[in-house]
This record gives sequence, C-alpha cells and structure tokens, in this order.
Amino acid sequence: MRALYFDGRLSFRDDYPVPEPSPDEALVRVLAAGICSTDLEIAKGYMGFRGVPGHEFVGLVQRCAVDEGLEGKRVVGEINAGCGRCTFCRSGLKNHCPDRTVLGILNRDGAFSDYLTLPAENLHMVPDAVTDEEAVFTEPLASAFEILEEVPIHSDHRVCVLGDGRLGLLVAQVLGLTGCSLTVAGRHRERFSMMEGLSLRPALIDDVPERSFDFVVDCTGSPKGLDLALGLVVPRGTVVLKTTLAEKRAVDLNRVVIDEVTLVGSRCGPFAPAIEALERGDVKVRPLVQEIMPVEAGQEAFELAARRGALKVILKMEL
Amino acid sequence: MRALYFDGRLSFRDDYPVPEPSPDEALVRVLAAGICSTDLEIAKGYMGFRGVPGHEFVGLVQRCAVDEGLEGKRVVGEINAGCGRCTFCRSGLKNHCPDRTVLGILNRDGAFSDYLTLPAENLHMVPDAVTDEEAVFTEPLASAFEILEEVPIHSDHRVCVLGDGRLGLLVAQVLGLTGCSLTVAGRHRERFSMMEGLSLRPALIDDVPERSFDFVVDCTGSPKGLDLALGLVVPRGTVVLKTTLAEKRAVDLNRVVIDEVTLVGSRCGPFAPAIEALERGDVKVRPLVQEIMPVEAGQEAFELAARRGALKVILKMEL
Repeated sequence: MRALYFDGRLSFRDDYPVPEPSPDEALVRVLAAGICSTDLEIAKGYMGFRGVPGHEFVGLVQRCAVDEGLEGKRVVGEINAGCGRCTFCRSGLKNHCPDRTVLGILNRDGAFSDYLTLPAENLHMVPDAVTDEEAVFTEPLASAFEILEEVPIHSDHRVCVLGDGRLGLLVAQVLGLTGCSLTVAGRHRERFSMMEGLSLRPALIDDVPERSFDFVVDCTGSPKGLDLALGLVVPRGTVVLKTTLAEKRAVDLNRVVIDEVTLVGSRCGPFAPAIEALERGDVKVRPLVQEIMPVEAGQEAFELAARRGALKVILKMEL
Repeated sequence: MRALYFDGRLSFRDDYPVPEPSPDEALVRVLAAGICSTDLEIAKGYMGFRGVPGHEFVGLVQRCAVDEGLEGKRVVGEINAGCGRCTFCRSGLKNHCPDRTVLGILNRDGAFSDYLTLPAENLHMVPDAVTDEEAVFTEPLASAFEILEEVPIHSDHRVCVLGDGRLGLLVAQVLGLTGCSLTVAGRHRERFSMMEGLSLRPALIDDVPERSFDFVVDCTGSPKGLDLALGLVVPRGTVVLKTTLAEKRAVDLNRVVIDEVTLVGSRCGPFAPAIEALERGDVKVRPLVQEIMPVEAGQEAFELAARRGALKVILKMEL
C-alpha cells in the first residue's frame, strides 16, 4: 500500500505492507488525514518514532471481526490503545496506560497510508452531515474539549488562547462555548477578519495586557509559548499547556512559584462532544483548511504545514 | 547598626543606617534570623536584589506608633507588604500585590541586621513556649502550610516530598499531619535515623519507584528537581513547585502534557497554623538546626548554608 514513512527522514513508499488487525481491532481504509504540529515534531525526532506517522483521520471500516456492524461505516478514531488490564485502563483512563500504543506516535503505524488498524472500541461513526475534510478535525477538536474536562472555565472568566494557528482556532471556538470573555492572541493581523467571522475576538500578542487572564491556553507550538503565557496570566491563575516539542524548553519557572500559577498539561480528549460540535456547526473548521494534497506529495505537505502561520494541511488518499 | 549587605557581593557592615518605619510600620530589633535557599539564590543575583537580605526572623518590637500594644513584644513577621489598595490587597491576597515589597527580597531591607521595619499588621506574637531558634522557622513553615491551602491532600493519597533539606523536612512534617502515605526522597542516608525520629519515612531518590505518587512536592532547590518530580508523579497527578532559582531551567515539559500533570507553584503561607504547630510540637525544628553563628560571621554562614546537605544556619544578633 502507499504510505509516508519516517525513519529519521520522511519518504513516500508504495510497497508498504498492509497492517494486520488483531482480533479486537478493525482494519480501516483511510480517506483523509490531517497534519498537526505533533507530526512536525515527530519529523524532528520527537518520541523517537519510526514508522508511519499521522493520527488525525477519517476512514471506512474495511474489516472488523469483533464488531461486524462497523464494516463499511465511515469512522474517526481515538488514538490511544490501552492494555485493557492496568489500573488506568480499568478506570477509564486508557489514554494514560503505561503500555499503550498511540496511532502514528508510539509503537503503532499511523494514518498517512492506505490502511491503519485500531481497536474497534476506539472508533466513532461520523454523521452524514460532516464531510471528510471536517471529520479530519475530530481528533484535535477532542483535544480542545479535553481542556474543559480538566479546568473549570465559566462565563465570568477572562481567558486567553495564545496562538492563532490550527490548534488555537479550535481551542478558541470550544472555550467560546462556555460564554467566557475570550481573546485569541496571535501574530497574524491578516487573520483577524476570518477570526471575527468565527465570532472570535483576535488581538496581536504584543497588544494584550500582561497579567490579565484567569486562564491562558498555550497553543503556540513554540518553545517560547509558556513564558509568554506566564506573562499573561494573573497571579493564582491557570496556564493550560498543549504544546509538545522535540527539545527541552528553558522556562522561567520562578514566575510559576512566585505568582503561584497552576500549570495543567492537556492532551487527548473526548470524541463525542467533538463530533457533535462538528455536526451542529458549533465549531467551524472549513476556514482552517490551508490545503488539500495527495498522499504522494506528503513531504511537500509537511513542508507547507511547517511554514509559519500555516493552517491545516490535509492529505487525501484519492484526489 | 550592624548589617549584612549585598550589592553583587555580600559584606558585613557596622555603619548601616537604622531603617525609619513609616506610620503604619513597626521598628523591630532582630534577635535571630535564618538563612534559606532563597537567600543563597539572592547572593547569586536572583531578583536583582540590592540591600540587606534575610526574611526568616524573630525580633522584639522596639517602636510601633500604629499599635503601641505591640511594643516590647516578641514577634515573627509575614514578609510581603502590599499597597493596601489594589484588587489583590482588598481580596486578602497582599502576597500577590503587584506593588508589594518583600522583606529582604524585593525593595525592602531584610533581617540580617540589628533592625528591620514591617507593617504592624504583618507581625505575629510568638508564644513563650517557642524559643527564638524555633521561631525563626515560622516563615518557612508557613510556606509549607501554603501547600495545603493550594492542593487537596487527604489520608488516602500517596505523597512524595522530594528533597531532605531544610525545606523538605518542614514540608514533610506538615503534609504528614494529613495522614497521607508519605515518603521523603533524598540523597542523605546519614539523615535517615533523624527523619525516623520525626516519624518520617525516608528513602533514597534512586530507590523510589517512578510514577507512583499522587502528589510530589519539589523541595530540592535544584534545577533538576522538576524533572525528577515529573518522573515520580502518576499521570494526572500533581507536582508542587517550591523552588525559585536565579537561572532559567531546561525542563521536559512534554511529560507535563503527555501525562496531563498539574504543576502548582507555591510560595508564602499562613503564619497562624505555623506558630501553632511550633507551640504544640506538631512540627519539630530543633533537629534541623545546623549551626548558630554571630551576624558578623555572615559570609561564612552563607558558605556553610550553601554546602550540599546543609540544614538551617541561624544568625544570632547576640551570642
């Protein structure tokens, strides 16, 4: 099958073996897959991953012994596959199973290929009203909803989403659903009117007043993001950290101690509210599509996605 | 008066001017003052402080126009002096007033001298049962109690205090009061019997199992402390950060994101429970005294306090 393969460098192959699902897994034919910042970090060596990257996808279930009703269905999939036996798996936290595999990130080939496998229980059917291009956003959108599972954001809070990129614009739309007073702080004035069209209030980072937000969510994907966020949060406020990077970060943690800031790491999230938000149109993702390209152009697509200010680049298996 | 003065290097002076209290302040004659890691960082340039360091003290109120009843009383003092007018001061969070001064740390001369000034409202009388040497521990002990104001530690939690130094041994005794399952992870096997005498369970850092604590408190005072703590905490667990350092720290924040760890900065705390714990003997501080030295030997005392494994060095004004 066709696949983008990473072994220190990214290459396109057309002879990659089709994965074999284990008894509890489904074989999924990929329709489309999105490139996110984690993929770009993986291409820099993050997680020491070797194999097929890609974890934001929509596909058709080709074969599923454990749940034949899924066959032929259009699905998206949660990316963490737990062992099913440990304390975390048994308490519903399979995302934190120490022996987990993670699609396209940890010990499991991912979505930039014709086929992938995932446990059947990880799959969610996609409503007809949601297009393939929209469905690709389910995984990052779920990760935005995870923030609301972790920190209590209410309508009387002042919230800043730091970063107006592909993740920031999803997070901002999700947090906006709480009715909080929300600012999206970014570096792209040319994106203001698009954001206003999404009912967001954009600002340039340099114009945002220091120490003026109860919650700041770092969606910059940049090593400097946390220090910026610590400058914007009030004492005793909360910074939510979404950014993973290949390299360690030098951070002014004194600010965390002196201002008694709470820092919350946040990763994968619940798919159900994400799918619902796409179906109802509560979150709009079409303006976030930068480019749709064929999987054969994967290297070029990675380069495009890595450009400063790039939004979502989607790889389609059939174009 | 006599004073230790820092202006890029630390020196003893005997001609330093006695500070003049403003109308709401008391003039306090210092009896004894402790050296903590923040003082050692200040001597490396932390906070860009210039003046008399020192913020852990016990003294006698010499003069206090606003509250004459305090005159002659033996007191300890909260170290943050707020503006009294801002949102933080009006909501009881003067420790976070943006215009605050901090004794011996920020825009206010400190306790390594014959006299200091503080707002009268910052002072707390010391019960007779508490000696001068014990009273010096009130401020760091209050900072240990601050942890319980910030995070909910219960008897069913597994808690690790990382660091068996002067702060770690205070924090451990305070957290032990909750009945939690507590381990003190340090590097000094020779300190085990002393810790057992304080009803603490000591362990060597290398012997402590990874990812096995709901809460980890970093009391190492070391740039490596946070990475160590992140290795010990369970996914979705909490790391409390007590360490401030002159330099930035390179940290593996991916662990925070991937394991969805909460990191809580923690600084100054409530004096009342600290004084009560000293009076009742709930927290024992005498085993934590490394050395008592005259203020004239301040430089030597700083060097001693900076030695690896040193406990509390106390400067006494009259020996």
